[in-house]
Formats: sequence, structure tokens, C-alpha cells
Amino acid sequence: MQIRVYYDDTDAGGIVYHANYLKYCERARSELFFEAGKTPTAGGAHFVVKNIEANFLKSAKLGDMIKVKHKIVSLKFTSMKLCQSVWLEDVKIFEMTSVLVFAKDGKPIKIDEEMREFLTSLHLDF
Amino acid sequence: MQIRVYYDDTDAGGIVYHANYLKYCERARSELFFEAGKTPTAGGAHFVVKNIEANFLKSAKLGDMIKVKHKIVSLKFTSMKLCQSVWLEDVKIFEMTSVLVFAKDGKPIKIDEEMREFLTSLHLDF
Amino acid sequence: MQIRVYYDDTDAGGIVYHANYLKYCERARSELFFEAGKTPTAGGAHFVVKNIEANFLKSAKLGDMIKVKHKIVSLKFTSMKLCQSVWLEDVKIFEMTSVLVFAKDGKPIKIDEEMREFLTSLHLDF
Amino acid sequence: MQIRVYYDDTDAGGIVYHANYLKYCERARSELFFEAGKTPTAGGAHFVVKNIEANFLKSAKLGDMIKVKHKIVSLKFTSMKLCQSVWLEDVKIFEMTSVLVFAKDGKPIKIDEEMREFLTSLHLDF
Repeated sequence: MQIRVYYDDTDAGGIVYHANYLKYCERARSELFFEAGKTPTAGGAHFVVKNIEANFLKSAKLGDMIKVKHKIVSLKFTSMKLCQSVWLEDVKIFEMTSVLVFAKDGKPIKIDEEMREFLTSLHLDF
Repeated sequence: MQIRVYYDDTDAGGIVYHANYLKYCERARSELFFEAGKTPTAGGAHFVVKNIEANFLKSAKLGDMIKVKHKIVSLKFTSMKLCQSVWLEDVKIFEMTSVLVFAKDGKPIKIDEEMREFLTSLHLDF
Repeated sequence: MQIRVYYDDTDAGGIVYHANYLKYCERARSELFFEAGKTPTAGGAHFVVKNIEANFLKSAKLGDMIKVKHKIVSLKFTSMKLCQSVWLEDVKIFEMTSVLVFAKDGKPIKIDEEMREFLTSLHLDF
Repeated sequence: MQIRVYYDDTDAGGIVYHANYLKYCERARSELFFEAGKTPTAGGAHFVVKNIEANFLKSAKLGDMIKVKHKIVSLKFTSMKLCQSVWLEDVKIFEMTSVLVFAKDGKPIKIDEEMREFLTSLHLDF
């Protein structure tokens, strides 16, 4: 997924505001569903971020076209571990490993079977 | 209501991103309710922005402490006309007149009586 | 220009936060430059928003793919008047007329000749 | 530092958009400087986020008043390790440990002496 860096993504430091890399990764996760004509929810449940470990390697600036890559590290009963990275051409500028829990009304539940099949079908092993 | 300008409010131009003045005005509108221990909703209905006319006069920058002022121009059956301005010390840097419609499920409805009384009680005639 | 509505664009009301339509319009303005391999600046000067008149007609929600259209109403010595609209399929959901001033260090200056030629070459008369 | 949750902080899920907790933590870091009449920069250098480890424990929603606490874990030659947490009344809803590097033009440099003294003077050991 390609994302353009616009003014509202940058801050007074002239580069992308750090929290926006998490936003790019979330957009890219959601886009996996949208481009397949689906939504990231199932029966009122959806994935919520539980834990994040992120490294900010380089900066992107206004007008840059960046790319987000995904890799599902593990897919468990109620959660998945996802590794995402943001690239500027062939340079990795950000990487993040996150644990996402499938939850409904704030409580973890079993990942919906259709959801699990869809995630598996994406073959996110770059 | 006083609002500090933080990094995420600014853009690569070094000043507050223009759309954020609308955000400040909305936050200030909501704060009227929150500081009174209320919410800006009533029976599933709330005010939605229908029309805006805004003038960007000066810029605020990182670290500035700005102030939002309100004036209710008119309070009708299903809508109100509100004039808001953003100040940096004694300089007006932004002003906006907006028409807000009280709506439920996307349809205009009569402004709730309690809501109307609350708005009137604020004496927003600066 | 097509823009997808992501989680960070929406608010607790379930629809796109109103100020984000201004953000979409700005992104679309900037994209005109980026997709031509240019930047929206020239010699340290760039267009700043001076005045906006906007109508919020309908709402977009998570996952929607919206489109922004532009029309230059007039191109003057130091400013331009631009009409932009946001569409969800064939329904106009937002329209905005804005006055943009070409400015450097906060002061209006003559619109750069190359900039003027580029804007004219876009034939923004939909 | 107390922060109110406004509409623009929430998403269609009805709660605070996850990346905004990083924004709250950054605002709180910056506020340490602003409320002391300082800026978070020194001689063109400032702290940039290098690494983050974050746990999302609970959610905040529209109108909540949250609080951010800080603890400097270590203060080294060019960087500091900071532990921040977000509280809703007496419940911890988010915690984050981050490594911030003092950098100029994208390169790490020695933390300015005045900056170091200021940080030490804050006694951030809650």
C-alpha cells in the first residue's frame, strides 16, 4: 500500500509527526480489508492494538510516497502478532511489531472463522 | 477556553495547520458541555456542522497559548448560528461563523428543551 | 483524486470528523503538484488559506472512497479563488470555496510565473 | 498534565484512536517545557523518538479527562529513556517506554547542558 505524505502529516520539525507512522500502519491494515470489499469488523468485533514495539529509523517528509509492508508473525485464538514496516523507496524508515486482540465490547473473543480465513488467504509473508 | 499549540497541531510550514482552527472551535464548543458536567449530545442527537464561513487572519505557532471565544448569533427551532473566534493574547487570529443543526440519525430535529435552556444559560454574548 | 476514509478520519459519531473535509481538499490541492513531480512551494512562498466558505451536505463513513474535484474560479495577482467539492460516488457531500493567498514569511507576494503557468495548464474547469 | 478527550481524538469505534496516546505523551513532554516558559528545542536541536514500547491497557472515551505522568529512567550523553503513563482517574490505561535522542539535522548530538539541567530539575521520579 502506497501513502503520500501531506501537510497534515508533518509537524513544525518539517518531517512526519512520529505518531503518524502508527496511523499509516493502521490505515494499511484496514486497506487490506477495504480493497477486498470487506470491513475490518465482524459481528461487532474488531482488532484492537494491545502492545506495540516500534523503531523509528529515518524520517519521511512532505510529498514523499511511502509504502507499508505487513507480515503476520502468528495468528492465535483471540489475537495476532503483526510485523509492519514503512519504506521510502528501498529504505526502511520505520518498523513495528504489534499484538492485536480481536475484541467485542472491550473483551477478547475468538477470531471469527471467516476473518481467520481471510487473513490466511492474504499470504502476508514478505 | 485556553488551548496550547502542540507539535501535532503544526505542519511543515511551522505554523498551525489551517483545518485545526476548526478543530479548536469544536473542542471549545464541546468543552462548554464537559466543564458543566454534561455531554454535547441529548437522546442520541447532537449538533452537526452544516455551513462554515471562516477567515484566517494570523497564524499561531508551536507553544502558543490561544483562546476561543463564542457568541450565539441565533438559536432557532432545529439549528443555531454561532460566531467563534480564536485569539492569541489580544490579537484575533481566526474567526468563523457556523450553522449547526441539531440532528439525529442524520436528520434535523427540534433542539431538546434541556439543551436549549443550557445554551441560553451560558449567556454567550461577548 | 481519490481518498479512502480510515479510522483516524472518523470520530465517535461514526462519520468523518467535519474539519477533515478541509484536510481532504488541501491534500487534493497538494497532490496536483506532487503527481506532476512538483512541490506546492516556489522560492519559499506557498499558498495559504485566507477565507473559506463551506457547506457540509452529507457524511462519509469508514471505508468510503471519496473523490475531490477542483475548479479555479479566478487567478489574480497574489491570490486565487478555488472551488472544491467532495464526492461519494455521484453524490456531492461537501463543497468549499476558498481564497488562497500566495505568501512568503506571512506576506502576500506576486504569484510566481512558473506557478501561474502550472496552475493554468491544469485546466481546472470541470 | 491533564488532557480532555475531544471528538477529534476519537474514532468510529467510539473510543480514543490508539495512535493518539502517543500524541498525548508528546504533548505532555512538550508541556513540561512550555509551562516553564521554555521550548523543547535548544540551538536547533531537539529530542526525537527513536524507539517505543507501549501497552494499551484500557480505553478512554469522549469527554474523559486523562492525566499523563512521566519518569525519566535514564539520562545519557545523547539520549534519554522515558517512561510515561496515561491515567483515567486512578486507573492506568496506557504506558509507554521510549528512547528519545537529542538530534540536530537528523544526527544525534550531546544533550545541551542547560537542557540537561532543566530535565534534572524536574525531578521526574514519581
